[in-house]
Amino acid sequence: MTPELAAALADDADRVERALDVLLPAGDGPESRLFQAMRYASLGGGKRLRPFLALEGARLFAVAEACALRVATALEMVHCYSLVHDDLPAMDDDALRRGKPTVHREFDEATAILAGDALLTRAFEVIADPMTHGDAGVRAELALQLARAAGAEGMVGGQMIDLETEGSEDLDIGAITRLQRLKTGALILFACESGAVMGKAGPGPREALRGFAQDLGLAFQMTDDLLDVEGTAAETGKAVGKDAARGKATFVSLLGAERARTQARLLAAQAAEHLAAFGPAAARLREVARWVVERRS
Amino acid sequence: MTPELAAALADDADRVERALDVLLPAGDGPESRLFQAMRYASLGGGKRLRPFLALEGARLFAVAEACALRVATALEMVHCYSLVHDDLPAMDDDALRRGKPTVHREFDEATAILAGDALLTRAFEVIADPMTHGDAGVRAELALQLARAAGAEGMVGGQMIDLETEGSEDLDIGAITRLQRLKTGALILFACESGAVMGKAGPGPREALRGFAQDLGLAFQMTDDLLDVEGTAAETGKAVGKDAARGKATFVSLLGAERARTQARLLAAQAAEHLAAFGPAAARLREVARWVVERRS
Repeated sequence: MTPELAAALADDADRVERALDVLLPAGDGPESRLFQAMRYASLGGGKRLRPFLALEGARLFAVAEACALRVATALEMVHCYSLVHDDLPAMDDDALRRGKPTVHREFDEATAILAGDALLTRAFEVIADPMTHGDAGVRAELALQLARAAGAEGMVGGQMIDLETEGSEDLDIGAITRLQRLKTGALILFACESGAVMGKAGPGPREALRGFAQDLGLAFQMTDDLLDVEGTAAETGKAVGKDAARGKATFVSLLGAERARTQARLLAAQAAEHLAAFGPAAARLREVARWVVERRS
Repeated sequence: MTPELAAALADDADRVERALDVLLPAGDGPESRLFQAMRYASLGGGKRLRPFLALEGARLFAVAEACALRVATALEMVHCYSLVHDDLPAMDDDALRRGKPTVHREFDEATAILAGDALLTRAFEVIADPMTHGDAGVRAELALQLARAAGAEGMVGGQMIDLETEGSEDLDIGAITRLQRLKTGALILFACESGAVMGKAGPGPREALRGFAQDLGLAFQMTDDLLDVEGTAAETGKAVGKDAARGKATFVSLLGAERARTQARLLAAQAAEHLAAFGPAAARLREVARWVVERRS
């Protein structure tokens, strides 16, 4: 990663961290355990890739920083909720996330379920709030697109397929690609496209960002699959070797590590090309595509 | 219940049932188990009290029927999601709901968690859709109010308090009242107020509906507590005697059955009075308040 990209990522991650701190509930009542779990699940960790994509996308259209930050933070709440629920014993049963005990380990299962529910709900509360954008049409459109990306025909649908097909050996590359487009791709698509919604961009730029997002999302997931095979828990902050242990079909199990790596790099290059028309303004997004496939965590 | 109210409730319940059928996802892919669980959780059951309140409230302001029905149906999705998650083994661990096995018993825990997540998300998708209301300001306001009602400082917060205080004997009537205002009251408040939002009503009618909702919500909960003591599973379609078995403080354990019944009737009468200014147009809502405290299920 270039020092410039590292600094930009760190800077945006700081801003998202502070926004999460402000936008998440706090207080001392009998429900404070819920607030603590929501904060534990969201604060102090993660690459903040999705909010970075949203913030960078918004910069292409000169969207007000405060507006973009609220949308980026709401999006991160949805991502964090999905991790909390996916980690539950009934789902992936993970003990470690971002180098810390998962929420149900640190608190308990009931609190983890509720904290996830509340994070998801808070995301829509933040987006629908007039403080997010002066144009209610933009707020409603953002809520609609986020719900589509996160719901039964997006992220949650992808997680259902992932659970349903675990241990199944007849998944082909088409089925895995569809699974990942839903499970991780839909939210990355929202991240990349949200700036165009906030900036009321025309169909051309919007389509370019969608193309970027789709290639980036697959490249990101292929790299995740590689890290599960080749990474260490110390590097990635989560358990590794899980896919093989569960007999899960992944891009790596289907293509082999070398072909998966080559394919990820090709997709990342192709992602960057979608942004050619934006010129130097999209330099960081193109740089992100390169980094996504070279990262070690 | 008067035959007129029974017919009106049944008629609106039919319309909500058909709308759920249209608005919930369907299909044959590997994620179809998720769609089936969402449908199992929502279709074919329940009093549909919340959607009825929303539909009747919308009629006071001559809101287009199609608009009100979408909002009422989204609201019912949120209610159904909360039941699915509350019934989970890590929460209330219930086997029976609306006379059928709970979702995690009929499917499995992972599917129940995901079906709840997807129902909640779908509710926001339906509300934010331009088909719901021509005015984006109304859609954004509905999404905002629904998120506030359902989230950490509303329904989910109430459920957290409920779990945290289970078995605790030092809950007083003030604490129980606050718990119920959050856990069941907030969504009932949204139900009653949403018609005023859709109809862009002024502060006077909106405040009257809020007053109605708050008294109705408490009367409803007191009656639920009474049914848990005095009802049968055959009547109520769910397990009874649970509160006492868990040592839960309820309105009945604190006030005794007789005082709780008297208090519920007083609140129901007071709820009806808030609607005096609406005249005969609110006759059904006033009738609902009477029914809520006399019901046997």
